[in-house]
Amino acid sequence: MADEGRFRRAPGRFTDRITADGEDGWPVEAGRYRLVVSRACPWASRSLVVRRLLGLEEALSLGVADPVQDDRSWRFTLDPDGRDPVLGIRYLAEAYEARDPERAEAVSVPAVVDVPSGRLVTNDYQRLTLDLETEWTALHRPGAPDLYPEHLRDEIDALMDDIFRDVNNAVYEAGFATEQDAYDEAYARLFARLDQLSDHLATRRYLVGDTLTEADVRLFTTLVRFDAVYHGHFKCNRTKLTEDPVLWAYARDLFQTPGFGDTVDFDHIKRHYYRVHEHINPTGIVPRGPDLRGWRSPHHREELGGRPFGDGPLPRRPRRTRWSYPCEVRPSAAARPP
Amino acid sequence: MADEGRFRRAPGRFTDRITADGEDGWPVEAGRYRLVVSRACPWASRSLVVRRLLGLEEALSLGVADPVQDDRSWRFTLDPDGRDPVLGIRYLAEAYEARDPERAEAVSVPAVVDVPSGRLVTNDYQRLTLDLETEWTALHRPGAPDLYPEHLRDEIDALMDDIFRDVNNAVYEAGFATEQDAYDEAYARLFARLDQLSDHLATRRYLVGDTLTEADVRLFTTLVRFDAVYHGHFKCNRTKLTEDPVLWAYARDLFQTPGFGDTVDFDHIKRHYYRVHEHINPTGIVPRGPDLRGWRSPHHREELGGRPFGDGPLPRRPRRTRWSYPCEVRPSAAARPP
Repeated sequence: MADEGRFRRAPGRFTDRITADGEDGWPVEAGRYRLVVSRACPWASRSLVVRRLLGLEEALSLGVADPVQDDRSWRFTLDPDGRDPVLGIRYLAEAYEARDPERAEAVSVPAVVDVPSGRLVTNDYQRLTLDLETEWTALHRPGAPDLYPEHLRDEIDALMDDIFRDVNNAVYEAGFATEQDAYDEAYARLFARLDQLSDHLATRRYLVGDTLTEADVRLFTTLVRFDAVYHGHFKCNRTKLTEDPVLWAYARDLFQTPGFGDTVDFDHIKRHYYRVHEHINPTGIVPRGPDLRGWRSPHHREELGGRPFGDGPLPRRPRRTRWSYPCEVRPSAAARPP
Repeated sequence: MADEGRFRRAPGRFTDRITADGEDGWPVEAGRYRLVVSRACPWASRSLVVRRLLGLEEALSLGVADPVQDDRSWRFTLDPDGRDPVLGIRYLAEAYEARDPERAEAVSVPAVVDVPSGRLVTNDYQRLTLDLETEWTALHRPGAPDLYPEHLRDEIDALMDDIFRDVNNAVYEAGFATEQDAYDEAYARLFARLDQLSDHLATRRYLVGDTLTEADVRLFTTLVRFDAVYHGHFKCNRTKLTEDPVLWAYARDLFQTPGFGDTVDFDHIKRHYYRVHEHINPTGIVPRGPDLRGWRSPHHREELGGRPFGDGPLPRRPRRTRWSYPCEVRPSAAARPP
């Protein structure tokens, strides 16, 4: 197939790593770095979930950008005076410029910023969570789970490759396609992979082993957005997530696990996608649906066994729950008594 | 609420009636008129269904326009040489111009054209089917149902008013809104009405009495398009039709009744909405979903009693089935064994 009309994701371009030994000049250190995210963004949401699961909330502080960018990109308009209270900047672009004025044109989240210098360290979303899991161990909460266990990495990496190509990124390829062929191909690849993952998860609670891993985090961040934005806005509409009993129960199980659902803000998700992508939704109207209350319904996945955190304790409760309903609707007809 | 951003439907402007007594100069006559439709259009589809139910196929011939208009509007590009074989015209606009060159700017379907003169008679979609039912009786098939029985007209009219305002037209008001308030209001009105109709239909097979009426035809033409186009493209996405067990079974029952589903072409429906409305879908990409095969699944509505055609026989089989699947997909996960 020709490449015309096909969406290509730009790679993260600031790939310094924050490591235990500080080999790139950025040693792991409590309080030194600030994680900047949008709660709308699936790539950033990986790090939100992992930070919670590992108990890194105190060690790595969090800045949350407005879900709707303007022409200078991500901005701190949710904060008092429109400035991030720790970095003191109005736009995330300022941290990119402080790092390298010549490469600052494409601003993305997640971004980790060095607080003392105000400089961006990394926006490498593919590496970031793996480093939180393997390099930041000294700062993990007691009994934190191992989300990237060494003896399972081959299996996890292979699955994550599939999930990145055919799920995380395929929804964007479908939604941003400008030629029918490119859309059709992404759609077919997406649903073939979701069907395969559904079969895989029919008899086991988690993707790899019997506890949570990074692979589950990466599948979750797309599934939780599926019906809210990808189904309609990105035309990934063969079926809703709620129509696949296995994936829907799996996604609810994760959503209801501390560290997952408490990072999700459906209002941010919907406003970002529907208002920012003017080339797909020129009116900027944000749909009131779907009815999302099913996310809190029983999933019965515990019957499959599995121990989300292995032998360790649950993460602590979040300081505040970010859960918000985008609209008040009556229970879906399906939930009503017949 | 201000009127800004709110969609207003233009009334049909050619309101001559074809009647038994010919009082407007257009007497009912077999073979004299041609019904021009798009199978994409819900307003035109009412007349497609009614023509079948009443057995008017021979008396009133049918022209089917390409589902994708160009800048001269509806066109006969599906026919050999791009001309309607009976009217000999390339564009429906030609029949409008033959009728009144000064009022021919807004071309719509359904349109009834006088074959001998080539002139448009009416595009009054609100009146057309009622006249087919009450004025064309001499040409109905033997035992044709009475879709607009006199003793039920008050009830039917009241329901059709509600359905027009809150269902048939509300989906357009939601989809064409350019202000959030206008969209929100239409969305709320639509789902409140659908919930009320779902309650109404939970215990009875048809909307009025125990047989098919014009009210059922008018609700059907919106329901059959709901998941294919209104749910995503028009952002009517609280729930899919398939998520309301009552309305979904009701719609399937009608779909499987001769005269309904055999007039439906999902490919025409999807291509029209997604390619013509560039202000909503600038890329023109036509979604491959949803999986529509459930339309043929058992509905069990016969258990509620009711007799679709009263004491009369079914319509004859259609000359050819226009049923088409827009895509080949594997059975939805919901339909798979657990």
